[in-house]
Amino acid sequence: MAKRPSVMRIIVLVCTCVFLCHADEGMWTFDSPPSKQLQQKYGFTPTQQWLDNVRLASVRFNDGGSGSFVSPTGLVLTNHHVASGQLQKMSTPERDYLKDGFYAGSRSEELKSPDLEVNVLVSLEDVTARVRAAEKSAKSEQDAVKVRKQAIANIEKESLDSTGFRSDVVSLYHGGQYWLYRYKKYTDIRLVFAPEQQAAFFGGDPDNFTYPRYDLDFAIFRLYENDQPLKSGYYLHWNEKGAAEGELVFVPGHPAGTQRANTVSQLQTMRDTNLPNLLVMINKRLEILRRYSALGPEQAREAKEDISGLENEAKALGGEYAGLKDPQVFAKRVAEERQFRDAVKADPALESKYGNVWDTIANAEVKSRTRAKEAYFRRLGSQLAATALQIIQYVSEVKKPEGDRLPGYRQAQVASLMRELLSPAPVYLPMEEAMLAGVLEQARAELGPNDPYVKGMLGGASPEQVTKAAMKSTRMADPAFRKSLLDGGEAAVQASTDPLIVLVRKADPFSRELIRWRENEIQSVEVPAVSKLSDASFAVYGKSSYPDATFTLRLAYGTVSGYKMNGTIAPPKTTFYGLYDRAASFNYKQPFDVPARLMDKRLNLDLSTPLNFVNTCDVTGGNSGSPVINRNAELVGLIFDGNIESLVGTYVYDENTNRAVAVHSAAIMTVLRKVYGAGALADELQGH
Amino acid sequence: MAKRPSVMRIIVLVCTCVFLCHADEGMWTFDSPPSKQLQQKYGFTPTQQWLDNVRLASVRFNDGGSGSFVSPTGLVLTNHHVASGQLQKMSTPERDYLKDGFYAGSRSEELKSPDLEVNVLVSLEDVTARVRAAEKSAKSEQDAVKVRKQAIANIEKESLDSTGFRSDVVSLYHGGQYWLYRYKKYTDIRLVFAPEQQAAFFGGDPDNFTYPRYDLDFAIFRLYENDQPLKSGYYLHWNEKGAAEGELVFVPGHPAGTQRANTVSQLQTMRDTNLPNLLVMINKRLEILRRYSALGPEQAREAKEDISGLENEAKALGGEYAGLKDPQVFAKRVAEERQFRDAVKADPALESKYGNVWDTIANAEVKSRTRAKEAYFRRLGSQLAATALQIIQYVSEVKKPEGDRLPGYRQAQVASLMRELLSPAPVYLPMEEAMLAGVLEQARAELGPNDPYVKGMLGGASPEQVTKAAMKSTRMADPAFRKSLLDGGEAAVQASTDPLIVLVRKADPFSRELIRWRENEIQSVEVPAVSKLSDASFAVYGKSSYPDATFTLRLAYGTVSGYKMNGTIAPPKTTFYGLYDRAASFNYKQPFDVPARLMDKRLNLDLSTPLNFVNTCDVTGGNSGSPVINRNAELVGLIFDGNIESLVGTYVYDENTNRAVAVHSAAIMTVLRKVYGAGALADELQGH
Repeated sequence: MAKRPSVMRIIVLVCTCVFLCHADEGMWTFDSPPSKQLQQKYGFTPTQQWLDNVRLASVRFNDGGSGSFVSPTGLVLTNHHVASGQLQKMSTPERDYLKDGFYAGSRSEELKSPDLEVNVLVSLEDVTARVRAAEKSAKSEQDAVKVRKQAIANIEKESLDSTGFRSDVVSLYHGGQYWLYRYKKYTDIRLVFAPEQQAAFFGGDPDNFTYPRYDLDFAIFRLYENDQPLKSGYYLHWNEKGAAEGELVFVPGHPAGTQRANTVSQLQTMRDTNLPNLLVMINKRLEILRRYSALGPEQAREAKEDISGLENEAKALGGEYAGLKDPQVFAKRVAEERQFRDAVKADPALESKYGNVWDTIANAEVKSRTRAKEAYFRRLGSQLAATALQIIQYVSEVKKPEGDRLPGYRQAQVASLMRELLSPAPVYLPMEEAMLAGVLEQARAELGPNDPYVKGMLGGASPEQVTKAAMKSTRMADPAFRKSLLDGGEAAVQASTDPLIVLVRKADPFSRELIRWRENEIQSVEVPAVSKLSDASFAVYGKSSYPDATFTLRLAYGTVSGYKMNGTIAPPKTTFYGLYDRAASFNYKQPFDVPARLMDKRLNLDLSTPLNFVNTCDVTGGNSGSPVINRNAELVGLIFDGNIESLVGTYVYDENTNRAVAVHSAAIMTVLRKVYGAGALADELQGH
Repeated sequence: MAKRPSVMRIIVLVCTCVFLCHADEGMWTFDSPPSKQLQQKYGFTPTQQWLDNVRLASVRFNDGGSGSFVSPTGLVLTNHHVASGQLQKMSTPERDYLKDGFYAGSRSEELKSPDLEVNVLVSLEDVTARVRAAEKSAKSEQDAVKVRKQAIANIEKESLDSTGFRSDVVSLYHGGQYWLYRYKKYTDIRLVFAPEQQAAFFGGDPDNFTYPRYDLDFAIFRLYENDQPLKSGYYLHWNEKGAAEGELVFVPGHPAGTQRANTVSQLQTMRDTNLPNLLVMINKRLEILRRYSALGPEQAREAKEDISGLENEAKALGGEYAGLKDPQVFAKRVAEERQFRDAVKADPALESKYGNVWDTIANAEVKSRTRAKEAYFRRLGSQLAATALQIIQYVSEVKKPEGDRLPGYRQAQVASLMRELLSPAPVYLPMEEAMLAGVLEQARAELGPNDPYVKGMLGGASPEQVTKAAMKSTRMADPAFRKSLLDGGEAAVQASTDPLIVLVRKADPFSRELIRWRENEIQSVEVPAVSKLSDASFAVYGKSSYPDATFTLRLAYGTVSGYKMNGTIAPPKTTFYGLYDRAASFNYKQPFDVPARLMDKRLNLDLSTPLNFVNTCDVTGGNSGSPVINRNAELVGLIFDGNIESLVGTYVYDENTNRAVAVHSAAIMTVLRKVYGAGALADELQGH
């Protein structure tokens, strides 16, 4: 689960910030931890030093996911499924690290990631006042969008220039606050250990997003600086005992996005338009990839990681969709909004300021739905084609003032973008061709042959013809060629006769037009409206809550706890006995097969050793790879999933059933020592 | 699960017989097996010999439950929870067979059950014509009830006199057909083996009615005739391999009752009146027993079996209630009835005969709801008080012609009744007192102090006072005293000054009045109406279906098959690995503790041995202890439960999720040999 979706949600996730916190709910920013709740419920108050240590021991994987430093020598623990994109890129037809796993017995054997970037949040600063001050010069609400973007770009650039840190201005409470987050960036990241994917993802798609689970979903990297293992001084000590049932635990990490404060009209768009459309798109892509995968073992290897990612996403979004379609869930949100609106209405001053905001948003939502489908086809399907579009847009955008640029091309984002565009990771042209053709075919079917975009891209030819021509002799798979285009700038890109560049140039104006339409017609209305709702919420409920998740560092808290499930109780933890039970109960049929080593070495294990466990911490996609820590900030587990009941957590948190699923600290130790012959690594993790 | 409810459903379960069969649905009578479906779907047609063998190898436990002969020497396999009432009765404060289990290493050590009766269905005969012929003489519909009862009594008595077999006329298709079922009756039943209750019922109430499961819910009796092991010649051969996933299997057994053909108005009574009332009653009784159980270890031992039974029932009925409250389930039944009514309406001949039947039933249902609550309190709560009421009523009823008697006192039922009334099983007076007082107190609270029954029973005193007086010096706990009352007849009972008899004599007229009111006001209307619906159904749909369950022998069929559950797939089977996983995952806390022997001997076991498995056979309460057999009529498993999704099966069968849960034949063999040191018994079962 829990990685950021690979098919980006093109939907503009503008939402309001109103919700009251119950129970162990919340993804709290580090400037505003839930100290009151922790003291009241658990008699624990984190000190500033505790918070700083935890923050500086936490890392963000920029392609989606979280992790933590777990040794004084730069070792970083994360999920196998966060690392798996890199494992796929490091693998070759001869050496399949996804399938076979990897262990570097010595530092010289560690494998450098081709294009990974890891960030550590070194400081955070409230810049709301600066953004607000700039907004005052705006002549209209449309102009305000531009002014705000320019102000943000200025703050980011100034910070980057003065500190050298990656500097992102993030909008919290949907524009209620703006914060400057400065990150120390690491790019020399080497793989130390990964188990077989089948051990990490035992149970596959069926068991994904469910519990009880039996997965060794972990991987270990080492961060380097100046070719030396990083010694930042901040890391989590390993606690092999783990956390007991009922024990207070914390999860620092980077939840990607929640929509708990959406208005009802925004939720309706999700439920009735965006989620069903997205699910159709994802299933189409899965269909294409599975067809490709069936061509042979090498094709299967190439497609495996993308298929897993899409299955993960289909199940996650399917769960969200089912949750939103649950009349009880929806009624709860309707009632909350009704209460909020009534509170506003009851105060004439609030009513005159905010009373019409819900209708404003609802009108914008109705408009946004009219072009929802088009948006899905602007993504092109093929990763290589998407890279081509980014190159085409970048060389043009980079010449403009920051405030005028398309999103994703601000100066502060450029370095990370370059890393992606120039990645040496292998490209499989036949797979790219299949994806591009399939998605173009779907665009023609869904939008009709007379849709301007479809006509523009196909010009009367078939998707197969167009795509074959584009992929046959493209040089885009070569990073050096991509670098030559970037170096050559707009002139080189415009002059290029590379057939993929030629084709994707046709998509560029359509892409721009839709982005601008959204900015002008939807965001210019909704952004100030939701910002007003944010103010209204502060006025009615005070500033006692947490902002919706934004892939920025958050702290969740809760306890190790089973829950009611399937007519009975789900246990707080599982054991290795359960792994072998579930495998045998399906006669070891894929995806319930156990890798040979783990099968053979089971007699070495105490099978009652805890394997996975659940807790009430409020997490979501992006928290994958987050550590679970105790009061002493010791590592007791590793988040890798949420249960099926947690999927609706995008919109609503329910402590009764919403659970984060983690690998137990004891499980990692025992398999390193007794299954994988990685005692030296285990010693290093335990500080021996 | 799956035993007949111990708190009897006082509701008159009169229902219609209309439903169409889908998939592996159906509890088929042996005179009309689903040969067409079996041939079409599985290419298998059971021969008459196959059917006869299976029927004669099947047994019914008269206190609720099923079983089968599994050796040529009278061994009968059933569930531990079918045997547990007997185990409780055989136990003493010194020897707790429920807790510790039991194994008779030799025949002389086998333990005789105090009051068990087991029946084997030796013949079945359609007597509809005789009942119909008798009905013609009735002067009114009310008179018809009496006439029918007399006709049935005559048939039963005639058969009993001429054959010596227990002879029951059973109404199938809700009066659409009447059949004479003749049973060979066995009463010398000796316990050979039972595991610890905790091994049989691992997971306790939480896991009850759920799957995956890990229960050794089996017990083995031996039937004797003339003090010799029974050699009937009919038994199932043990197949230790079990059935593979997807394999066709059968379940012969005695499903207690379904209501799949109820009209919508009858379902409304269940959903809105009877089930909620029943759940309140059961929970009150549980509360009383738990309070009693908390007084000390001996009280806990005495109450354990009743508490288990009530918890089982609360969960089962709670599941049914939840199912009926599911708008989709209910809408399905509404639509089916609409279709049936439309079909009747479309044919003028049918319409004039049957068109008003649904309204007739609906009116009777409205009336029945007005006295639903009273009915629950006529049962008195205490088993001993209920026995007293049976004695009081029996001595009076036995003097009347059969057609005039209250239900339960027909001549054919007397022998079994005597066995119950004269059982030497221990009686715990303080527990009986607590139950009687608690239920009287609840009657006063629910019906009000001015209700005639409440006034009649309490006469102004408190429930505690009344009950204490009645129980203090009663001799009813002594079977000899009960025999003296029965022998003395009405005169002795009326003259008795035993304080419990004195108290319960006050309840007798209230009991009679309500039974007669139901007969005259509800049943006299509904019985002919549902019988008409049965005819209408035969007219519209033909005679291709099976009758609702009536605790008579049925045959279900299906395949071994997992199902979608909890966002993933439930496996077709579980293994011993899973038992130890679930135990360890709850730190072996009750009810997830493993008995010492089973814990210690785990190293002797191949933990991948199948433990439990699921199949699509359509079973319900009363099927507990039924064998699961393959095409060769070999024993491959032992039904002991249904999954949580099967509870709504009382009203609707859904092949996608409705599953019967069984103990695997290999699990029984392996624990007999490797855990319980019962190799000799295992040899006997395997014919060695």
